Amino acid sequence: MSTFGEYFRVHTYGESHCRSVGCIVDGCPPGMELTEDDIQPQMTRRRPGQSNITTPRNEKDRVLIQSGTEFGVTLGTPIGMVVLNEDQRPKDYGNSTMDRFPRPSHADWTYLEKYGVKASSGGGRSSARETIGRVAAGAIAEKYLRLAYGVEIVAFVTEVGNVSLFPPTVEHPSASTNPAFLALVDTIDRPTVDSFLPVRCPDAAVSQTMVDLISDFRDRHDSIGGIVTCVVRNLPSGLGEPCFDKLEAKLAHAMMSIPATKGFDLGSGFGGVQIPGSVHNDAFVASDAAATPPAVAASGAARAGVPRPLLTTKTNYSGGIQGGISNGAPVYFRVAFKAPATIGVDQTTATYDGASEGVLAAKGRHDPCVVPRAVPIVEAMAAMVVMDAVLAQQARHTAKSLLPPLRQTLVSERPAGNGVTENTAKAE
Amino acid sequence: MSTFGEYFRVHTYGESHCRSVGCIVDGCPPGMELTEDDIQPQMTRRRPGQSNITTPRNEKDRVLIQSGTEFGVTLGTPIGMVVLNEDQRPKDYGNSTMDRFPRPSHADWTYLEKYGVKASSGGGRSSARETIGRVAAGAIAEKYLRLAYGVEIVAFVTEVGNVSLFPPTVEHPSASTNPAFLALVDTIDRPTVDSFLPVRCPDAAVSQTMVDLISDFRDRHDSIGGIVTCVVRNLPSGLGEPCFDKLEAKLAHAMMSIPATKGFDLGSGFGGVQIPGSVHNDAFVASDAAATPPAVAASGAARAGVPRPLLTTKTNYSGGIQGGISNGAPVYFRVAFKAPATIGVDQTTATYDGASEGVLAAKGRHDPCVVPRAVPIVEAMAAMVVMDAVLAQQARHTAKSLLPPLRQTLVSERPAGNGVTENTAKAE
Amino acid sequence: MSTFGEYFRVHTYGESHCRSVGCIVDGCPPGMELTEDDIQPQMTRRRPGQSNITTPRNEKDRVLIQSGTEFGVTLGTPIGMVVLNEDQRPKDYGNSTMDRFPRPSHADWTYLEKYGVKASSGGGRSSARETIGRVAAGAIAEKYLRLAYGVEIVAFVTEVGNVSLFPPTVEHPSASTNPAFLALVDTIDRPTVDSFLPVRCPDAAVSQTMVDLISDFRDRHDSIGGIVTCVVRNLPSGLGEPCFDKLEAKLAHAMMSIPATKGFDLGSGFGGVQIPGSVHNDAFVASDAAATPPAVAASGAARAGVPRPLLTTKTNYSGGIQGGISNGAPVYFRVAFKAPATIGVDQTTATYDGASEGVLAAKGRHDPCVVPRAVPIVEAMAAMVVMDAVLAQQARHTAKSLLPPLRQTLVSERPAGNGVTENTAKAE
Amino acid sequence: MSTFGEYFRVHTYGESHCRSVGCIVDGCPPGMELTEDDIQPQMTRRRPGQSNITTPRNEKDRVLIQSGTEFGVTLGTPIGMVVLNEDQRPKDYGNSTMDRFPRPSHADWTYLEKYGVKASSGGGRSSARETIGRVAAGAIAEKYLRLAYGVEIVAFVTEVGNVSLFPPTVEHPSASTNPAFLALVDTIDRPTVDSFLPVRCPDAAVSQTMVDLISDFRDRHDSIGGIVTCVVRNLPSGLGEPCFDKLEAKLAHAMMSIPATKGFDLGSGFGGVQIPGSVHNDAFVASDAAATPPAVAASGAARAGVPRPLLTTKTNYSGGIQGGISNGAPVYFRVAFKAPATIGVDQTTATYDGASEGVLAAKGRHDPCVVPRAVPIVEAMAAMVVMDAVLAQQARHTAKSLLPPLRQTLVSERPAGNGVTENTAKAE
Repeated sequence: MSTFGEYFRVHTYGESHCRSVGCIVDGCPPGMELTEDDIQPQMTRRRPGQSNITTPRNEKDRVLIQSGTEFGVTLGTPIGMVVLNEDQRPKDYGNSTMDRFPRPSHADWTYLEKYGVKASSGGGRSSARETIGRVAAGAIAEKYLRLAYGVEIVAFVTEVGNVSLFPPTVEHPSASTNPAFLALVDTIDRPTVDSFLPVRCPDAAVSQTMVDLISDFRDRHDSIGGIVTCVVRNLPSGLGEPCFDKLEAKLAHAMMSIPATKGFDLGSGFGGVQIPGSVHNDAFVASDAAATPPAVAASGAARAGVPRPLLTTKTNYSGGIQGGISNGAPVYFRVAFKAPATIGVDQTTATYDGASEGVLAAKGRHDPCVVPRAVPIVEAMAAMVVMDAVLAQQARHTAKSLLPPLRQTLVSERPAGNGVTENTAKAE
Repeated sequence: MSTFGEYFRVHTYGESHCRSVGCIVDGCPPGMELTEDDIQPQMTRRRPGQSNITTPRNEKDRVLIQSGTEFGVTLGTPIGMVVLNEDQRPKDYGNSTMDRFPRPSHADWTYLEKYGVKASSGGGRSSARETIGRVAAGAIAEKYLRLAYGVEIVAFVTEVGNVSLFPPTVEHPSASTNPAFLALVDTIDRPTVDSFLPVRCPDAAVSQTMVDLISDFRDRHDSIGGIVTCVVRNLPSGLGEPCFDKLEAKLAHAMMSIPATKGFDLGSGFGGVQIPGSVHNDAFVASDAAATPPAVAASGAARAGVPRPLLTTKTNYSGGIQGGISNGAPVYFRVAFKAPATIGVDQTTATYDGASEGVLAAKGRHDPCVVPRAVPIVEAMAAMVVMDAVLAQQARHTAKSLLPPLRQTLVSERPAGNGVTENTAKAE
Repeated sequence: MSTFGEYFRVHTYGESHCRSVGCIVDGCPPGMELTEDDIQPQMTRRRPGQSNITTPRNEKDRVLIQSGTEFGVTLGTPIGMVVLNEDQRPKDYGNSTMDRFPRPSHADWTYLEKYGVKASSGGGRSSARETIGRVAAGAIAEKYLRLAYGVEIVAFVTEVGNVSLFPPTVEHPSASTNPAFLALVDTIDRPTVDSFLPVRCPDAAVSQTMVDLISDFRDRHDSIGGIVTCVVRNLPSGLGEPCFDKLEAKLAHAMMSIPATKGFDLGSGFGGVQIPGSVHNDAFVASDAAATPPAVAASGAARAGVPRPLLTTKTNYSGGIQGGISNGAPVYFRVAFKAPATIGVDQTTATYDGASEGVLAAKGRHDPCVVPRAVPIVEAMAAMVVMDAVLAQQARHTAKSLLPPLRQTLVSERPAGNGVTENTAKAE
Repeated sequence: MSTFGEYFRVHTYGESHCRSVGCIVDGCPPGMELTEDDIQPQMTRRRPGQSNITTPRNEKDRVLIQSGTEFGVTLGTPIGMVVLNEDQRPKDYGNSTMDRFPRPSHADWTYLEKYGVKASSGGGRSSARETIGRVAAGAIAEKYLRLAYGVEIVAFVTEVGNVSLFPPTVEHPSASTNPAFLALVDTIDRPTVDSFLPVRCPDAAVSQTMVDLISDFRDRHDSIGGIVTCVVRNLPSGLGEPCFDKLEAKLAHAMMSIPATKGFDLGSGFGGVQIPGSVHNDAFVASDAAATPPAVAASGAARAGVPRPLLTTKTNYSGGIQGGISNGAPVYFRVAFKAPATIGVDQTTATYDGASEGVLAAKGRHDPCVVPRAVPIVEAMAAMVVMDAVLAQQARHTAKSLLPPLRQTLVSERPAGNGVTENTAKAE
């Protein structure tokens, strides 16, 4: 089903050549100021052909809110959003090689296997246009999270082909042990990321190497993959649901649902398997109340007196999640994207019926590396996951807050970390 | 919520010191022979302390089917399963360091942040015992998949610490380009894997190095992580739901919900980002009808005349999934596990209230590396994901098969690949 | 959440004064011919102001399919549908009585209690326009059910105020014991129902009495309620899921979600509580194979050789559902609608803040009885419920059909009633 | 699927002759005192053979909590509950008439049509024992609702056969216009209801007539139906989700999922269709702050300062729900139960294969009227629905409370009715 989320539920529709693509966002809290202007920037960051994000001229992919707001305020009802397709004519059949050959590593063949029919564009719903609805929905989630908790979500490119911002070393098998990486995670913001267009890798030298590498692949009509790293800061503690819906499980689900992804890891990740437990264990330390980030201090949670976690961790190999539940430290993760399947060279492959083999002719233009454009999509999916977890946790906490204090209780000497303040006495 | 799956839905319950752990499996097809004997072997493979799987003496963790079968046959109704806990006494509070210190990188603290109360064992539901219900449910899914389609699911250990069965090289940045790996993926079975106990890495030399490494960590009262690789063979094509529920997204969700996981990748994975599109694209080729695997030939699908896919791919960088949908090639993926948090050395950490810091004393015994025991859990989760996708696709195909033939249609000259045969004519 | 169904999932959006209302239909089988022409007729039947259905001039509420079809054929992907709102201007606040007084028995007040904000139209999402998405989605479900199984869904008016087509009597406390009612249920079709416009009660005399009664209420600027009865014929047996999702439970849910409904009953219903078990029990009898209805004989199920149930019941107090599962007999039920809350007389009521009481002035035009227009909405919701149940059952049956025959089995001497043929031997 | 609810999610399992029946309750708030003693009373009220509820000797159907609590306090994790079956031996086949004849109006035949196999008891999962899990789960929901909001849920019998506590009259076509009924709804409690055992109809004379009627049916080895009326008092306003999950729609779903139900109506119900809108409209009036019910004053919501609704209605034809959302007035509804299908007289019916007809011999004991025992089941299902709606609304309100105040806003001059206090200024 084309639905994501339980409390903040997003439904999308649309393929390449239909009238429009869009989505319905169900579960957005009422009373939030929201217009298309809150959504369009991320839509624009997602668009192809952008050389500089600061001049969004000739803007296409205009989102139109259909419902769920009035006078620029959310009503709490489903928010319908539509983006018109410019080329709505499905292609004719029977006269092109694409009708005879499923394109290698595209979804043409698997869609036909699945549905028995297929869209004129091949794997219709696997089109990159499908991600428009995600970005629109994510922008709404993100606005709420920022207003309510000061949450900041920033993605950026850390690897293109064999060029890596933080290549693994014997000392640092995972970037999570690298102080430079951790400093970046604590401070990076979107303007900085976009200042490194076209690749969105926040390092001048590495960025230039990536540009050169991508150009090289473009010139050879070939393509190459890359890695997007994303950090979520100022997340409340307590998010994520045992056992199956651990926060990292939902993030993995979300990220691996983005077209062309091949891998996900969190915190120390794949490199972290080499780190001994005695190092990898993140010892607790009292959090510094004076160091509340400005975005948090300005949030609704701060206004409502929601307490900040009393503890944080000295290190953050865990990537901000322990036992599937956020601990308040930055959540950071990587998403691997393969090289785009659309390339400019001839490919020998079989016909749909398997009866013969032939050459699928090269197409004209193609995008040699999708990673820079994937940045806002990764951010959007992260926002959707976090939003869903926030609503679930708020429900639980409010529910608990209305219960009578326990006469004898388990260890819980402190107010809970989010949603609502509560106090339970220790057993005597 | 402690629920996984939509069509094959598994609900689990239980923490360390409660009466029992267990699950309800909803959606198992009726008319399948099923007894505890189908489930117990995987339960036993999951147990700690096994030195040799062929002598399951002194067996604990006995699963008891409560409902949903009669005379050894599934009724189609929910299957309740229970495994008793041996130590049902919750611990007293107030007299141990564990009540004052949240253990680093355990779930003690995040559970308290989430719920405001916590189980005597700390992060109660994050206990490894929680995985018992998963393994029991997975065994049922697995039996159906084997009977109906000849599906084979085999997991094995490929990395412990810095010892890797297929370390990345310049030539093979991903194991998916390594012929030795691909050959293994095509043939590995569980008896072979278990013949390499205690580490379950199917290579004598590498296995011994891993044993030595783990012993070394045990001797130092430390722990270390590792990687489990899993292959699913004989999967029907057409499984996986665009856009959010791509097959790899559900697999990622499932795997990252297993305790202690930090990463997931599919096919070429993280290493694959370095492979150019011109190489990474998996060209199609007619499948060899004569080469139907025995397990498939003996399956219900074969008996029912469900056609095999006409095409396969020359290479398999995709890991058997394209556009989120299975293409019939082997699905293989890796799951990274961090070093266990329970270690035998003192740790300096903060108290729950953040007021002071102290030393959390070392505990007695611990498991220095969980990866070997994770093997059946990875298999179980894979089975649950595939089973869910199979039921979804069967529903779609049967629904389509009852529609009248299209007068003019899109390209679909061949019978669909699973569920039900159908024939739709090409438009003239 | 604004979602209905699990396998055939409908998401709707929209309130009175937003840009559009619409829906996404997820789960429609691929390969079905579908255009707006399949949907528009029910949309038109739902519209206000229709004096005769045969001349749908000046048609408004035009549905536009956004996605999910190509060349008039469903792709299996989500079907987006949009109907533009003509009056998109939200009303200004502060200058009308409606801003000060919540209208009695409207949703103005409860929406404000729920959301803390409210749409300019009061209970925005409670507008009758919300039902547009339901009718559009229902038309798709209905087409599939007709093509695949020959299912016929017909609703009609049986009560307006105290005028009843089948008033309860001592002999017939429920219409289900009344031969005239049962004959009607077996034969009624939509053209006949629409020939009794404007009230859609299929009896000339009773219909005229209803018209007179409604006119009387209109003249007094008052309103009145009524009852819609609906029959679903040619339903396959085996639909409905124990325990919570019994077919009648889903029907009740669906019907009671239609605005202004106050009651639902099935089969013998409320009157049936007076009928002794010895009478109410529906004895089984062999079904007459020769009497296959033409719609069924022409269906995809018949083409596919899906067997018809071997048994039927002599009587049908059960209303076609036993133990929550359809038995193949006609499913019939009643839905009670209260008098519309919008009336043309002054009403004394409190202001929003409870501080004062005043008179809410009468509005201009109103619809004195919604029951005739509710007919296509009831049909749409019934189609959605049945479609969902059909897909669930098809999934189960196909799953079962791929299992090996049981060596010893429970009583199941006959091929199953729908989906797929299967044969299981009796135990010896 | 055997799952009910989204936020408070109940999964049940079990049929007549399996090891146990039980359920998993997911979503119960943490920190609530809960032991078997909170659950057993309703289990006992549900049991057959009770002549007097005050002497629960020889108690069977003992519920055992498996997980989710520790030291008598909920942990927030899934609560597993098990009730052992005493007779766990499935019946042999082939030697009884029950193997040849599907019992009329039982689920024997439809279960076989659905699953292709069937339990030895016929429609296994349709057994009355299935309701045990519902009652256990409902007891937990009920305890929370009482503690948090002072919610009171009381069901009682209002009709047996043709004996009615509030028979419809010309003046009172619906009981909701009858002052005696409304007074009862405001005050009835469970001890009073149980003081009218065995029929649980709270009127001495009518109760005696019902007893006589049932005795008469028992003597004739026949059975009879009845109606249970249920009231939910002290419900917060704002519960219920537009459009499909209106509170009455969920209640209808819940009630019609109880075995043997044939109808549901709310507020004025079926009789209400005869009441003109000018009468049926419930005018608003300021609520009497001084008249806060004691149960509400003692609730967690009162302690937390959650404001009570400012308005109530003069009349309550709506049954406490308007536009699908609770308005704070008592919610009351009726559930119709048919005569039990198990009777003590011979029945002529067809064999499973339809080949012959014969006589299904009378069985021994049977329950001539299930309505008195249905009382706690109706209460349980009502509690589950309300609990789910409460958690949904708490999530929304808390989410909203963290948003900044609107600069210009829609009409919402007052604090919201539940969950969290908030204040939004009127637009100038």
